[in-house]
Amino acid sequence: MRLSKRMEKMQDKELLRLMELADDSDMISFAGGFPSPETYPLKEIRESFLEVLDSQGRDALSYSATSGYLPLRKKLAKRMNDQYNTMLTAEEVIITSGSQQALDMSGMLFIDKGDIILCETPSYLGALNIFKAYGAEFLAVPTDSEGMIPEALEERVKEYRNRIKLAYVIPDFQNPTCRCWTAKRRKEFMSIMQDYDIAILEDSAYSDIAYEEMERPPLISLDVKGQVINCGSFSKIFCPGFRVAWICAKKQMIEKYMLLKPSIDLSSSSINQRMIDVYMEKFSLEDHINEVIELYKKRRDLAIETMKTSFPQCVEFDLPKGGLFVWIRLPEGKNTRTLLERALLKKVAFVPGGSFYTTKGKENEIRLNYSNMSEERIVKGIQILGEVMKEFLG
Amino acid sequence: MRLSKRMEKMQDKELLRLMELADDSDMISFAGGFPSPETYPLKEIRESFLEVLDSQGRDALSYSATSGYLPLRKKLAKRMNDQYNTMLTAEEVIITSGSQQALDMSGMLFIDKGDIILCETPSYLGALNIFKAYGAEFLAVPTDSEGMIPEALEERVKEYRNRIKLAYVIPDFQNPTCRCWTAKRRKEFMSIMQDYDIAILEDSAYSDIAYEEMERPPLISLDVKGQVINCGSFSKIFCPGFRVAWICAKKQMIEKYMLLKPSIDLSSSSINQRMIDVYMEKFSLEDHINEVIELYKKRRDLAIETMKTSFPQCVEFDLPKGGLFVWIRLPEGKNTRTLLERALLKKVAFVPGGSFYTTKGKENEIRLNYSNMSEERIVKGIQILGEVMKEFLG
Repeated sequence: MRLSKRMEKMQDKELLRLMELADDSDMISFAGGFPSPETYPLKEIRESFLEVLDSQGRDALSYSATSGYLPLRKKLAKRMNDQYNTMLTAEEVIITSGSQQALDMSGMLFIDKGDIILCETPSYLGALNIFKAYGAEFLAVPTDSEGMIPEALEERVKEYRNRIKLAYVIPDFQNPTCRCWTAKRRKEFMSIMQDYDIAILEDSAYSDIAYEEMERPPLISLDVKGQVINCGSFSKIFCPGFRVAWICAKKQMIEKYMLLKPSIDLSSSSINQRMIDVYMEKFSLEDHINEVIELYKKRRDLAIETMKTSFPQCVEFDLPKGGLFVWIRLPEGKNTRTLLERALLKKVAFVPGGSFYTTKGKENEIRLNYSNMSEERIVKGIQILGEVMKEFLG
Repeated sequence: MRLSKRMEKMQDKELLRLMELADDSDMISFAGGFPSPETYPLKEIRESFLEVLDSQGRDALSYSATSGYLPLRKKLAKRMNDQYNTMLTAEEVIITSGSQQALDMSGMLFIDKGDIILCETPSYLGALNIFKAYGAEFLAVPTDSEGMIPEALEERVKEYRNRIKLAYVIPDFQNPTCRCWTAKRRKEFMSIMQDYDIAILEDSAYSDIAYEEMERPPLISLDVKGQVINCGSFSKIFCPGFRVAWICAKKQMIEKYMLLKPSIDLSSSSINQRMIDVYMEKFSLEDHINEVIELYKKRRDLAIETMKTSFPQCVEFDLPKGGLFVWIRLPEGKNTRTLLERALLKKVAFVPGGSFYTTKGKENEIRLNYSNMSEERIVKGIQILGEVMKEFLG
């Protein structure tokens, strides 16, 4: 059968392969971006499920409203307002089936073939892939450890203002680099962008996984003209198996997303939304997140310590201040795809950094996830990787 | 902000409005296509949830495999094979988040702007809407009570063979007309189509809701060259709140859908898939479906009887042999959108037939759903509608 032209851009099986690698129990996989199953509050979830089934079972098993379950949307708006001084109402929140769906919907909403998306590079692979399917081209803005560089942003946005439809950014603990934008850079970014008719998609999937106090207002809290669409998710801070995430934006913008939702999956799972709502009612999500952070911080420290002693001197990395990853740089000219092939033979997996770039050529980096495995496996996997690196780098 | 051009085609708020109407508890709404909540096997679902949480909780709360939960895919393949003599394997099944997602993915997979989709008219609104978003044009094939007319199909497919990428059909108890293709027409359809390089999307959302025995082999069981993609769903036969549905097709085709799945929502809800798997293991889904059929048949009979005594003589309808709807024809020239406005004032809702057509002009029909309300409300609603019709038709 003849397929659509966009499928030529969707032949990248990288994400599929990562998912498969993670399924092989012999493999020490640093490839995924998965939360650790041991953090799931099983007992509380069981209790919440029973309450939903016993008190609102038939509603919970029916279709949800297109926008999502209202009490949950209210809680999410309140949570944002409490944390970030936003003034969101429940009408400014729509529930999505995972935040990947929020990205898909954003591509569908904004992108025609040839439109430009302004982004960081490297950036989240799953976002780049789906935006490509809508025919997007990417314009990467040079970014340093503090965030997008304002002068570089201004130059690009001025030149391409008519073709740029969307800016896609992950200011908090970015996937893959774990970079966190400074408050100053966030303000500069918004101050430049507010002069242009360009929507800003702020991906906050990792925002809650912070290992230290930092001033990092989300862009949506700095938005004066309603151009920011903020998406968050329960996948990293709670459990990914429910496929419940959300988008916050001005009502007028949420209404556009509402037009799309019936056409892509009618509604998100009603019972899962209600279960999370009851969980948030009865238990403290924030306490749970703090426990998650504590565990991941311990694993981060262990990963970094082990890397320091096991990796060759020429291999560089920074201490991530949040998120689930550490970003590793080999010397220029070294190709980590080749390193991966060798590591896989020793049953260790990671994602070559090149996968996260919008253009080819930068191949000497690695994204390593440390959140979802035991301390023992972290140490063992990194030691093996260190040996493979030493051999590879000669 | 500037939106994509496809959004000009997505401004139709019909589906959203239907969902909202169904939420108003004062309204007697024949508008939805919802199953009846009283049929949900709550006790068995509760038991299945507990088993999943207690025996496989941490896996159930993690991401699912891209293709879906293997034991469930095995059961679905076996069920198809048992029912229809197909030879499907689990590898030829992928789980989707509701069958609406299967339609979205099919649009993404096949349709470039200007491609033609061959379809029945009227047809399922939610399918037409999402296909439009991918730039599809529609070529309706004249269809009578037995199915697509072979001569008309042959003529059209010959003329437009190069532009037709997909045929979208609902051979079993079609939404909105409840038409069921005869076995002869199915065979004729496949015999014509097999000469062309055109994928066939067979929507089987209503296949299991049959009120009488009929020979109606699914197109996928007649497929000799792997061109049929069959989609089914738990929404109508079990509960829609889980958002679990499936696609069956040849492995090579399923692999194409697998390329899309990570980009649109990573995976479907793991816990919901596992819950349904345990339910199917411990209880009889077929027995449950038979109970659902019995209830809907009673409601169908009551609806038809009440229509016979309450509707004006000039209003026509047939006895549906399956599905959730009855299709009603007013005299030519009468506009049921105007009728709807009057009915809404009396707190009765339905969907005007014109919404289901690929082109404008045919406005004298009604789709009426009878599955999800009490017998009392069915009678009351139809009596009110009959009065509004009498006044409207003069």
